[in-house]
Amino acid sequence: MSLIVQKYGGSSLADLDKIRLVASRVKKCRDEGHELVVVVSAMGKTTDQLISLAKSLNPFPPERELDMLLSTGEQVSISLLSIALSSLGVSSVSLTGGQAGIITTDTYTKAKIFHIDTRRIKDLLLKHQVVIVAGFQGRTPQGDITTLGRGGSDVTACALAAALSADFCEIYTDVQGVFTADPHLVPQAKKIARLSYEEMSEMATLGAKVLQPRAVDFSQAYGVRVHVRSTFSEREGTWVEEINSMEEVRVKAITHSGDMLKIVLLGVPNQPGVAAQIFKALSDFSVFIDMIIQSEGREDYKDLAFVASREDEEKVRKAIACLEKELSFQGMKFDETMSRVSLVGAGIASSPNIAYRMFNALARAGINIDMISTSNSRISCLIPRDLMEEAVKVLHEEFIMQEVRLNEEV
Amino acid sequence: MSLIVQKYGGSSLADLDKIRLVASRVKKCRDEGHELVVVVSAMGKTTDQLISLAKSLNPFPPERELDMLLSTGEQVSISLLSIALSSLGVSSVSLTGGQAGIITTDTYTKAKIFHIDTRRIKDLLLKHQVVIVAGFQGRTPQGDITTLGRGGSDVTACALAAALSADFCEIYTDVQGVFTADPHLVPQAKKIARLSYEEMSEMATLGAKVLQPRAVDFSQAYGVRVHVRSTFSEREGTWVEEINSMEEVRVKAITHSGDMLKIVLLGVPNQPGVAAQIFKALSDFSVFIDMIIQSEGREDYKDLAFVASREDEEKVRKAIACLEKELSFQGMKFDETMSRVSLVGAGIASSPNIAYRMFNALARAGINIDMISTSNSRISCLIPRDLMEEAVKVLHEEFIMQEVRLNEEV
Repeated sequence: MSLIVQKYGGSSLADLDKIRLVASRVKKCRDEGHELVVVVSAMGKTTDQLISLAKSLNPFPPERELDMLLSTGEQVSISLLSIALSSLGVSSVSLTGGQAGIITTDTYTKAKIFHIDTRRIKDLLLKHQVVIVAGFQGRTPQGDITTLGRGGSDVTACALAAALSADFCEIYTDVQGVFTADPHLVPQAKKIARLSYEEMSEMATLGAKVLQPRAVDFSQAYGVRVHVRSTFSEREGTWVEEINSMEEVRVKAITHSGDMLKIVLLGVPNQPGVAAQIFKALSDFSVFIDMIIQSEGREDYKDLAFVASREDEEKVRKAIACLEKELSFQGMKFDETMSRVSLVGAGIASSPNIAYRMFNALARAGINIDMISTSNSRISCLIPRDLMEEAVKVLHEEFIMQEVRLNEEV
Repeated sequence: MSLIVQKYGGSSLADLDKIRLVASRVKKCRDEGHELVVVVSAMGKTTDQLISLAKSLNPFPPERELDMLLSTGEQVSISLLSIALSSLGVSSVSLTGGQAGIITTDTYTKAKIFHIDTRRIKDLLLKHQVVIVAGFQGRTPQGDITTLGRGGSDVTACALAAALSADFCEIYTDVQGVFTADPHLVPQAKKIARLSYEEMSEMATLGAKVLQPRAVDFSQAYGVRVHVRSTFSEREGTWVEEINSMEEVRVKAITHSGDMLKIVLLGVPNQPGVAAQIFKALSDFSVFIDMIIQSEGREDYKDLAFVASREDEEKVRKAIACLEKELSFQGMKFDETMSRVSLVGAGIASSPNIAYRMFNALARAGINIDMISTSNSRISCLIPRDLMEEAVKVLHEEFIMQEVRLNEEV
């Protein structure tokens, strides 16, 4: 008998038939004798609909009130799932985030969990109840309702699995698992059987939407094994877990993002502290900067290029507007025609041969590289968006298909 | 400066435009310098929609989970109203029933308030916040969400007004106040300026839907003045308050209900305790019995007739089915063609002249009376439903219009 935390996302709960299907999956797992904590998101597009209601009353709704509103979405899901389970003869109790003991900071709309009081959940598990917990939400020590930001239900599930020392955490979604590349672009893309936390974290940060990066970090910190799999299939998905570092360094997946924005600040004074000043301003507006290049330029001035997500464009412009009051630079350019392709695999950045093969494969395909960035587990290249799809195919052939032909398992 | 509790019902919050209207009424009251606690119901038909979702998953949803589900309706309303107020520059804080300190029994779907911890509300009022409270809901001492039953938002408002010693409680609705008869039946019906708690309680019990009977009882017990008025008009509505009993005994209103069910149990053994047994069975199924007649009949058997609301028909049948196991009776009749007309006015039942005028007026109109019941403040007659409308008109002319011609105020 295992203790399992399951999480079902909004697309798995989009209508009453899907809720019935989830209930029957929960029953099946229960019938196998496992103890279960089930974390659910709001049904389908509920959260977006509630946000749009709020914004039509006030373009800048108070964040505490927005959390009060949004948290109803998951509350509807937990009660309906419990009601569906009761009709299958499965006894369950639903809990809001606050009732489940998820205590957070009071930074509304993006609260951080700082404690989970698991007494209520443990007590219900002892009474052989399936415990259904509203994802994405918690409460402040004072009792006010908070939400954890987009993808917060993943965080709830992984944090609960950690706090309860669950055997593993299952993330149910509408895809079969994590793939070696987006199957829409690369039809031969393979499901990945195992990923390390670090690889999953890189992929999540690079835009693979199956698992929230904060959720991965939680799992890694507490050693929770995570199984990303489909609600609509019995097949195994992708396991995210500690992987023996003695294994060979290998590219696990090719990721891409077509929504990159390249910003160049021209003629920035060449003096110490300027770069720090620029990136302080950007981080004040919560802009995540991926790549940075400082040109050599003239002796007294240089150009500075960096890359952000296009959805942050407004924040970038605000940050630069603030910056202009303190720092004189001679101009700027915004380039919205760029995309990013990345290789992901533990340790690959320290393997010069992989970087060489990547640049070479892109060059053979006539694709020019504008900027490069690396971390321990990935190498990313900025390239023109109209060549992105071709780049992903070329890299998938080079790094995945050739391996697959040698070795069955990815 | 007064402390006012306002309550807005679902029809006053049916869409975003109506929420904006309510926000502007709240702002106006606030601008006049009053302290405000605003209790809201779920938007429009939300509660019914949620119940139907639950029932399509399970015809008998667990009541705890139903309350978890239904309470989201008011939670959406409080947050949207707070968001609308913020766009008018009015600072407010929304609270769920539990956060507002409304502590109830754990009798889900029909919980009773047993304590209100007003500290959070008082603290917010001291900080000059408008406090918006979700009606219809509370929490158990353990922290589980409960609902107070149909019309529960009225109970929340009147109970909060009592606990906070508010100057008065305003019940906003889609009608102008309480009328001397249903204006749909009697176009000359007048708005009543003042009613005693007892009169309002009788009217509510008899089916006038403007105010929940339990809410009236709360107000009476704590001496809270209640003002029933329209959300969509500035005019005064009906005040419900302590009325000097030295005033003359007078008929205040004619009420009617077309949905009555008359049940006759035939040949019930004529022995002590049988009637008690029957009514115990009915009360076990929460059937409210209005009128009872025991026939003289033969020495060893008698017939027993009683009247219930037609919506309780299923419960009545279940109660009788249970009863049949313990008690032999020779048959039963269900008559669904009956209706009830009533006179309401403090002390009228003790004024024989009023009863006489009532029976006489009905007789003159050729309307036969099947059964009669009285309480301190009302006289009710069971009559055929096809004569109900005529009966209401005749009684309104006899008791209201003749008075109005003598006296401006009703």
